[in-house]
Amino acid sequence: MSLLVVGTVALDTIETPFGKAERIIGGSATHFALASSFFHKDIRLVSVIGDDFPPAGIEQFKKRGINLEGLQIKKGEKSFFWAGRYHIDMNSRDTLDTQLNVLATFDPVVPESYRNADFLMLGNLMPSLQKKVLDQMNIRPKLVMMDTMNFWMDTAWNDLMEVLKHVDVLTVNDEEARQLTREYSLIKAAKKIMTMGPKYLVIKKGENGALLFHENQLFFAPALPLEEVFDPTGAGDSFAGGFIGYLAGTRDLSFDNMKRAVIYGSAIASFCVEKFGIERVSELTQQELDERVQEFIDLVQFDIDLV
Amino acid sequence: MSLLVVGTVALDTIETPFGKAERIIGGSATHFALASSFFHKDIRLVSVIGDDFPPAGIEQFKKRGINLEGLQIKKGEKSFFWAGRYHIDMNSRDTLDTQLNVLATFDPVVPESYRNADFLMLGNLMPSLQKKVLDQMNIRPKLVMMDTMNFWMDTAWNDLMEVLKHVDVLTVNDEEARQLTREYSLIKAAKKIMTMGPKYLVIKKGENGALLFHENQLFFAPALPLEEVFDPTGAGDSFAGGFIGYLAGTRDLSFDNMKRAVIYGSAIASFCVEKFGIERVSELTQQELDERVQEFIDLVQFDIDLV
Repeated sequence: MSLLVVGTVALDTIETPFGKAERIIGGSATHFALASSFFHKDIRLVSVIGDDFPPAGIEQFKKRGINLEGLQIKKGEKSFFWAGRYHIDMNSRDTLDTQLNVLATFDPVVPESYRNADFLMLGNLMPSLQKKVLDQMNIRPKLVMMDTMNFWMDTAWNDLMEVLKHVDVLTVNDEEARQLTREYSLIKAAKKIMTMGPKYLVIKKGENGALLFHENQLFFAPALPLEEVFDPTGAGDSFAGGFIGYLAGTRDLSFDNMKRAVIYGSAIASFCVEKFGIERVSELTQQELDERVQEFIDLVQFDIDLV
Repeated sequence: MSLLVVGTVALDTIETPFGKAERIIGGSATHFALASSFFHKDIRLVSVIGDDFPPAGIEQFKKRGINLEGLQIKKGEKSFFWAGRYHIDMNSRDTLDTQLNVLATFDPVVPESYRNADFLMLGNLMPSLQKKVLDQMNIRPKLVMMDTMNFWMDTAWNDLMEVLKHVDVLTVNDEEARQLTREYSLIKAAKKIMTMGPKYLVIKKGENGALLFHENQLFFAPALPLEEVFDPTGAGDSFAGGFIGYLAGTRDLSFDNMKRAVIYGSAIASFCVEKFGIERVSELTQQELDERVQEFIDLVQFDIDLV
């Protein structure tokens, strides 16, 4: 099973109460690809960077075996740049700077060798670009997953509704689910979203975990309570990457396996926040990942026999 | 195993986006006692009301077999009264009116027949009164559980620290845990609180569930995602009542059984919020409760075999 990942590869400057990191490697596709590479070997990246992107960043992808044929490198241009500062509660942040740079004219081209991918992850991008990627596939992937954000609900509603029709799994956060449906109750919001196209919905609630919806089924996974959250950037993308990577790696789209995928996604996300950017996930071992999954099991499993 | 419950029995006027209920039966001890009565038959109440308290309210306690010998009824005085209005998100509320009335001079007297109770639930009251109840016990109960609030941290810190030394299980919400310890991280806060006396700590996070801490063990239970939350008043107290009621009913203080108690407490709380005040819990059947627990099992259980 091959997994095609589309999204941003960026440089981030991040300030948290614990310190500051300048121009480190970030972006949604970066976190997706690295997280999913723990579960699956055939990962293909479509994104764009400038020639200011550090070779060490490219090396990180190669080390994890990620196919970079679809990574456009624009000569003489600058990579997408984002700077933000987290508040003390780590749940809210201010954007200090956004420089679209290469992203402003990004035209995602899916290489011929990618067009038969079985799994497709459409990271948060302009909805018309997400649709453009989907339209380039030779065959409809077995699973199309998509992430989006409030901004596109405000500025590209019709395009968003159009691409949503073709999506199997949507991931949004709780605020986005509410904005998308004008429903405060997440249960009501989820029901509405599942009439817009997606058959599965993941609502990410940050430190309060994630909900997986499908028809009348509902699964909840907590975020692991951590002593310190060092840098939340990329946690949601790492979650999504772990989720779809696990599904691709296990070749099983049953709801029971999706539950496992939510747990593995949550486990990867719990590492992501321990250090700046991709630092922690880059050095993660399989044993550490298994131990973390065991912590999730211990955290939520209980034994009640109803007669 | 007998369970002694101390706390308020009140009249509440509640406004929510769904409607208004005037002078309905409420109070922490009311919700504790009713919730715990689903698991355990020997429940003894210590509280105070005025002679304005409706006979139908007294009847509710009697119907559930709750011992009222310790319920003081003050002739010519008025019951504790609280009025509040919930915001649209149901997570925050404004207090519109608080009339202490009989509570202003409440001197909790534990009847002789109550003084050998095995389980003691000290509801949110002035810490010196909570200590006074504890001091009247003939034998130290097998389990002392206590609830408190920010107000006592601001106004009665030393008394609060004194009573905490004698408590086995403390229940607080996340804000209160942070204020009690000046730690933002709930993990760090929990570690500090468990040096103050309690060996077990439950941190209630409202719609985001509850965490149970003991030594290095940690358990998390979500709140059940509901289509509508009608009235959150008493949810935390119902949770606590279900928790200690389940422990008393099963006579098992192992951590595994405390996990089950958290689930049963969460199940009762999920009913509490479906209607105003005690309305929903008063009409609850054992079968509905079992079905709700099954929903919790379905919500969080997953099956991962780590080799």
